[in-house]
Amino acid sequence: MKALIYKSLGRVAVESRPIPRITAATDAIVKLARTTICGTDLHLIKGDVPTCTPGRILGHEGVGRVHEIGSGVKAYKPGDNVLISCISSCGTCEYCKRGMCSHCTSGGWILGNTIDGTQAEYVRIPHADTSLHPIPQGADDRALVMVSDIFPTGFECGVLNGKVEPGSTVAIVGAGPVGLAALITAQLYSPGTIIVVDQDANRLKVALKLGATHAVNPSAGNVADAVQTLTEGKGCDTVIEAVGIPQTFAVCQDLVGPGGTIANVGVHGTKVDLHLENLWDRNISITTRLVDATTTPMLLKLIKAGKLNPSQLITHDFAFKDIETAYKTFGAAAEHDALKVVINME
Amino acid sequence: MKALIYKSLGRVAVESRPIPRITAATDAIVKLARTTICGTDLHLIKGDVPTCTPGRILGHEGVGRVHEIGSGVKAYKPGDNVLISCISSCGTCEYCKRGMCSHCTSGGWILGNTIDGTQAEYVRIPHADTSLHPIPQGADDRALVMVSDIFPTGFECGVLNGKVEPGSTVAIVGAGPVGLAALITAQLYSPGTIIVVDQDANRLKVALKLGATHAVNPSAGNVADAVQTLTEGKGCDTVIEAVGIPQTFAVCQDLVGPGGTIANVGVHGTKVDLHLENLWDRNISITTRLVDATTTPMLLKLIKAGKLNPSQLITHDFAFKDIETAYKTFGAAAEHDALKVVINME
Amino acid sequence: MKALIYKSLGRVAVESRPIPRITAATDAIVKLARTTICGTDLHLIKGDVPTCTPGRILGHEGVGRVHEIGSGVKAYKPGDNVLISCISSCGTCEYCKRGMCSHCTSGGWILGNTIDGTQAEYVRIPHADTSLHPIPQGADDRALVMVSDIFPTGFECGVLNGKVEPGSTVAIVGAGPVGLAALITAQLYSPGTIIVVDQDANRLKVALKLGATHAVNPSAGNVADAVQTLTEGKGCDTVIEAVGIPQTFAVCQDLVGPGGTIANVGVHGTKVDLHLENLWDRNISITTRLVDATTTPMLLKLIKAGKLNPSQLITHDFAFKDIETAYKTFGAAAEHDALKVVINME
Amino acid sequence: MKALIYKSLGRVAVESRPIPRITAATDAIVKLARTTICGTDLHLIKGDVPTCTPGRILGHEGVGRVHEIGSGVKAYKPGDNVLISCISSCGTCEYCKRGMCSHCTSGGWILGNTIDGTQAEYVRIPHADTSLHPIPQGADDRALVMVSDIFPTGFECGVLNGKVEPGSTVAIVGAGPVGLAALITAQLYSPGTIIVVDQDANRLKVALKLGATHAVNPSAGNVADAVQTLTEGKGCDTVIEAVGIPQTFAVCQDLVGPGGTIANVGVHGTKVDLHLENLWDRNISITTRLVDATTTPMLLKLIKAGKLNPSQLITHDFAFKDIETAYKTFGAAAEHDALKVVINME
Repeated sequence: MKALIYKSLGRVAVESRPIPRITAATDAIVKLARTTICGTDLHLIKGDVPTCTPGRILGHEGVGRVHEIGSGVKAYKPGDNVLISCISSCGTCEYCKRGMCSHCTSGGWILGNTIDGTQAEYVRIPHADTSLHPIPQGADDRALVMVSDIFPTGFECGVLNGKVEPGSTVAIVGAGPVGLAALITAQLYSPGTIIVVDQDANRLKVALKLGATHAVNPSAGNVADAVQTLTEGKGCDTVIEAVGIPQTFAVCQDLVGPGGTIANVGVHGTKVDLHLENLWDRNISITTRLVDATTTPMLLKLIKAGKLNPSQLITHDFAFKDIETAYKTFGAAAEHDALKVVINME
Repeated sequence: MKALIYKSLGRVAVESRPIPRITAATDAIVKLARTTICGTDLHLIKGDVPTCTPGRILGHEGVGRVHEIGSGVKAYKPGDNVLISCISSCGTCEYCKRGMCSHCTSGGWILGNTIDGTQAEYVRIPHADTSLHPIPQGADDRALVMVSDIFPTGFECGVLNGKVEPGSTVAIVGAGPVGLAALITAQLYSPGTIIVVDQDANRLKVALKLGATHAVNPSAGNVADAVQTLTEGKGCDTVIEAVGIPQTFAVCQDLVGPGGTIANVGVHGTKVDLHLENLWDRNISITTRLVDATTTPMLLKLIKAGKLNPSQLITHDFAFKDIETAYKTFGAAAEHDALKVVINME
Repeated sequence: MKALIYKSLGRVAVESRPIPRITAATDAIVKLARTTICGTDLHLIKGDVPTCTPGRILGHEGVGRVHEIGSGVKAYKPGDNVLISCISSCGTCEYCKRGMCSHCTSGGWILGNTIDGTQAEYVRIPHADTSLHPIPQGADDRALVMVSDIFPTGFECGVLNGKVEPGSTVAIVGAGPVGLAALITAQLYSPGTIIVVDQDANRLKVALKLGATHAVNPSAGNVADAVQTLTEGKGCDTVIEAVGIPQTFAVCQDLVGPGGTIANVGVHGTKVDLHLENLWDRNISITTRLVDATTTPMLLKLIKAGKLNPSQLITHDFAFKDIETAYKTFGAAAEHDALKVVINME
Repeated sequence: MKALIYKSLGRVAVESRPIPRITAATDAIVKLARTTICGTDLHLIKGDVPTCTPGRILGHEGVGRVHEIGSGVKAYKPGDNVLISCISSCGTCEYCKRGMCSHCTSGGWILGNTIDGTQAEYVRIPHADTSLHPIPQGADDRALVMVSDIFPTGFECGVLNGKVEPGSTVAIVGAGPVGLAALITAQLYSPGTIIVVDQDANRLKVALKLGATHAVNPSAGNVADAVQTLTEGKGCDTVIEAVGIPQTFAVCQDLVGPGGTIANVGVHGTKVDLHLENLWDRNISITTRLVDATTTPMLLKLIKAGKLNPSQLITHDFAFKDIETAYKTFGAAAEHDALKVVINME
């Protein structure tokens, strides 16, 4: 089969590889129909994630059809259309039982990281019963590629951790794909105000189209001042950090109001300053989370009911043979006004 | 009347002052029976709290008897025995309605800070209906002095924010009076393990007597290593920061396990390092809170039912005429094995 | 002033009465701008509520302007535009502190019941600070009349008690004004399916227009069968009872799925059968509630943000001089396709 | 092997049966060390549970050692000491994912009901990974037999559903083994008052010894009056129904206070009267639940930490060869002052 390989720092290439085989009774082999590229994949090929080494097939998102199952798989059979979760979950360890599948002792985020991933014609999925989701009859499977990772990530790490509620005031710092997924899913709880902060004018335009009530560009003036004005000096109930650098985390601390929450979604590479001298008595929470993908069934129900449309974030489509070009386009997202790119296998 | 005055940096003195008068319909004047000194009072006289200026009568804790009420006071009448909350709450502003009385727009922590306080024969209590609590018949009012501030503080900011639950693992960093109040009230939720960390051998001894299952002294070795051993490498579900300096906040980040909470109780004067590069994917929460004193009725019920004994933290009693000595004893707590000192008015 | 008086069983009349006076420091006198008639008012004049006796001025809903305040009122001054809550709340008793203002020991639902109400030119509001809400500048005060009672009732007793959540399945049994207010506010949480059950074809038509995904008329066949089909045999996550008779409560028990909730909103006059022999092992909850009106500030924020439009339920307007006709129209609601009628004072 | 067989109405007998075999990759065969008899077993042999037919090996509780595993079992190996949950859970169906394992589409309460159970030398456990729990080194496995069913039942259906909290007032109607398990586990949340109601003087004596603050015998006077006096007219925050007949459910409705919860634990065979005409406006909840056994890991941690001692409920021990006598003793519990009887295999 053909697969996209992480070759060396900064370099990926399509190569031939053997079709993966069942190695445990609870495995399934899935033939991919579509996959996508994640911001994390760009981090990986820069060498930022030491657990992922050259030679690895990348990718942790995708939809496809079950090709083969191990003897212990109960919920799926060959031919079933499935959504692949970015989180592999055994369903039996202490963390899975607590709903913290991201910390599964034999799973978590392993696809395209410590084991071969989904940017290939076939992929082996461990713990298939608890790591795949059935795709409902008649579903738009192209849209569902967004539900492998970015929609549960934006929803769980941003919206749920951020305790968005009807009428509340939300700020989202960073309007990349995950920030925008948080923007879309935040509206499931009907906040009164959603302020999106980003330096890219196009992304702010998209944000306003997707439901933001206000867009703030740091290049146009002090963000904290703008938000204080918009919130009548009260600050925000929920602040979602969707960038992952010290400067944006600092902005979040300026935007949160008494009793509010800073929900971190961004992947951070260095420590940040936490101004407890200002915040110790402000009754705030700061949360972190790697997506557990426990809300995937809820998101699938919402899509089926027409309450959620993840395809709004897809800006480009590529055939799998052009995946190296897709990496280039996605890697220069601002230049191409790219949000999510879908890779179609056939 | 006699009152303890903040004279100048580091200096307090008992002086004569007029008995306070009703200034708003919702005020009450309370004649103190007992008061105490808080760690915050020591901060105040070091000049750490700029809102409190020399000339102020200190103190935000105490029990007494209602002496006089304004025309709008409905819940109390002269002669009633009352507990004074450290938090004055109007009961009508947006924050009070949300249960965040600490941020009351015309109250909060004002006693002995921006208005005259309780280290005096009489005190004026604004918003009396929602800032006092009736003392049940036959109650040990000496013990109740602990319920003005440190018990709700340890309970709300530490135990409730920290989400202590049956069988869970709790670490408390700092075994001063508030840390010990958190230790006592944490047991209301039956955690399986409570590890107390402090450098003072006497306070660790007290902690073990009050229910800690393990005591760890940083001078005896690496705290994180000790806690990892005690928790079989899982870290703690709840870590309560009860000191307020960057070093102890750093320790807390080493002790918290995936899915856990760091509940900050300490009063911080400077920023701290937050190691998001380690914590961004660990599903943790960090909380801050100024006590809202909304749990005071619950704590009073528990004391009445014999489930809580706050007098365990009282180590010294002084007559009000000796309050300057009491300040010295409390200011050199380690030297005197002092926890809380009660000041008796009569 | 003119006021609508409950004269005797089934009879109301407009009569002259003296303008009410401040009787407690915490009272306010409000000059009404608009009021409305509640289904409960119809119950009252049938003699169903023994606490309300002939001679009483009816009405517990309305908006107006503060005319006079007692010396203990802090939050309002004459001239302020206010929304009157159907629940009077002292803000200081045990129940108010717990957020159960409906059980306020000196308030609760007393307006137009045990004290004179709002269907008059002026009304005395006890505990004004905690029983009125400021009307934001530029608000549509006609729509806000719906927020005195039916919107918080549908939202608190139906939607919040019913734990509606994104993607969930909701059934609402009864499409009167309160059932429809539950229908509108349920959508704040983005359920996937909302099934409305009623015998009135017009009300079902309105329900579909207001966001119901399905309408079921019991006269067209078995309701339980229809709902089982719509929910693929799973039953509903939330069932809201908005009628108040044994037959409709029985239907609710047939519609609720394992793990679901029956949220009772209806006012019941007799006992009902509870089929615990079927339900004891189905992990369900049944909730009851008299509106506490604690969500009124949230609802006001949502209206201000344009996320909620309560005027959708207003079908008729009357001048106050025609209020007896308004009672007749509202009393024969089906005949007039009436939902809520607004009574305009000027 | 030897096994206890449900022969016909009212009759059980020990017979020889073949040792069960693995029938699915996710099965395990467990060799029992100890088992017990549940009140439900007595119901079964009266024919009250139509899903259980003569010929069935009874029993859904026990501890033992893994004898054999299927190829899909990941968490256990032969020789492991295990606790058997009364609930078999696949871990992958919609209900298991929601934590409602009692409604597992291929599990739930099936042991000793629709498949052969634990009152035998060996038992086949389906979905072994998610239906067994490891027994910690050095644990008192005799006490752990109580954790197969009655402790999670009392805790989940009574205490958690009943929302017991520090300082609150709890009534438990019925002091059989499950009611007493609720009594013991309620104390994990430190309620201020626990009133136990039962007609059996011995059980009330036991209840007082196990932590009840008050015991009320209906034969000594009106229960509601007694409880109103004990609660100063406020009624109870939590009422746990642990009998399962209309009369006791009626008592519960008299005991619950505004804002309280009736947590049903009893198995009901007929409908009951629900007095909504009194309760519709009292802000109460009524909950039902079949134990999900999701708290078993928490209970095991508490036992290990010495915070919970389930052996307090064991009154009799029998060798397996005497299990028919054990049924007689347990069936005439009052006569023998019997609570739980342990059946020891060796």
